[in-house]
Amino acid sequence: MSLIVALDPPEGVDGVKWCINLINELDGVPKGFKVGLPLVVKEGVKGLREVASVMDTELVIADLKLADIGYVMSLITKAVANAGVNTVIAHAFIGTEGALSELTSICNELGIKLVLVAFMSHPGAVRVMKKVFSDLLGIVREINAWGVVLPATMPDVVKAGRKYLGPSFKILAPGVGAQGAAPGDALCAGADYEIVGRLITKAENPSKVALELIKKQEERVRACRGL
Amino acid sequence: MSLIVALDPPEGVDGVKWCINLINELDGVPKGFKVGLPLVVKEGVKGLREVASVMDTELVIADLKLADIGYVMSLITKAVANAGVNTVIAHAFIGTEGALSELTSICNELGIKLVLVAFMSHPGAVRVMKKVFSDLLGIVREINAWGVVLPATMPDVVKAGRKYLGPSFKILAPGVGAQGAAPGDALCAGADYEIVGRLITKAENPSKVALELIKKQEERVRACRGL
Repeated sequence: MSLIVALDPPEGVDGVKWCINLINELDGVPKGFKVGLPLVVKEGVKGLREVASVMDTELVIADLKLADIGYVMSLITKAVANAGVNTVIAHAFIGTEGALSELTSICNELGIKLVLVAFMSHPGAVRVMKKVFSDLLGIVREINAWGVVLPATMPDVVKAGRKYLGPSFKILAPGVGAQGAAPGDALCAGADYEIVGRLITKAENPSKVALELIKKQEERVRACRGL
Repeated sequence: MSLIVALDPPEGVDGVKWCINLINELDGVPKGFKVGLPLVVKEGVKGLREVASVMDTELVIADLKLADIGYVMSLITKAVANAGVNTVIAHAFIGTEGALSELTSICNELGIKLVLVAFMSHPGAVRVMKKVFSDLLGIVREINAWGVVLPATMPDVVKAGRKYLGPSFKILAPGVGAQGAAPGDALCAGADYEIVGRLITKAENPSKVALELIKKQEERVRACRGL
């Protein structure tokens, strides 16, 4: 099971209800759910708690893409941990001293898995992140993060990340579906999880689409491993 | 008036009440207020709306340090604009295509001022951001952002930013007080605003401390301009 579903409620819906409906609909299918700022901004930590309480997945991820000073990230991480989140995503590029070092301490203290973004899935990410990619991976390794975000839309970047980091870091790859990556491509390149949002959440039958997607992942992985 | 007050409620308080008390206490003193994720995560957009409704400052800033794909940042920006915010802060390093280009369109459409972070105030910021500083400033200029965040803790960085960008971009400088910069140093280096958080919000008498700080800013600026 390598599927994480991203739940970002669109405008004009009750964000909590929208998430809970999808979680119930997808019961038992994905390995984890990821909620981002669109839910948290709409509903606050209270809404996040309601949503997290119905997830029985291994990973309950708050993808706030934290990129602030340590003091601010610590306040936020305590709040989302209290709401039932077990994994938090932050940006590697902010560096360690006064930022990720403090966040790492708080995560260790609270038993939260820390995942760092070292590259993103949109075209513009290449412009700056490519230049400092090895620095960003170096930061992931240095603070011994649980995992790293690398784009499914750029399998070569996933490959390079796996080569640099070795087997002991989890790689989470967003960008499958609406952003253009095919199911299984990132897994073949070395990712542990593929993150899928709109392709599933906007489908008429989300669980059918999710199950088909997992099948495609498995076929693709069998093919690339020559099984 | 060059003071922006950062309102980040600490743990264990009612975030909305805490912010409103400070806003009332500081009435007429700062040019703007900046609220960050600690408030929004706690209270959601509903709490943000309550807080923004009592601000009568020129700048009402949501400092969520957006650093996501365009789709996600657009959802968030619409939500905070609806809550009464007129200025949004995002990170320059995420690049334009699929990210800041979309955010710029949404901000223009909604009449929101966009401010981009091109350097941060904590020590670890130097590690990665220094290497790509001119790229980040290039992005600020290219998308014609209203303003840029540069650290008061590093006046040379503020100077370099002003030199690169010229006079038509606003420079907002955080890091005065708790993070170590002295009032007025960033203004002397070319900033338009200094952002102060804990030094004022944790004071026994916040408005007294804020007024003293403004006096120090003015003295420092008079001295550095040889007046």
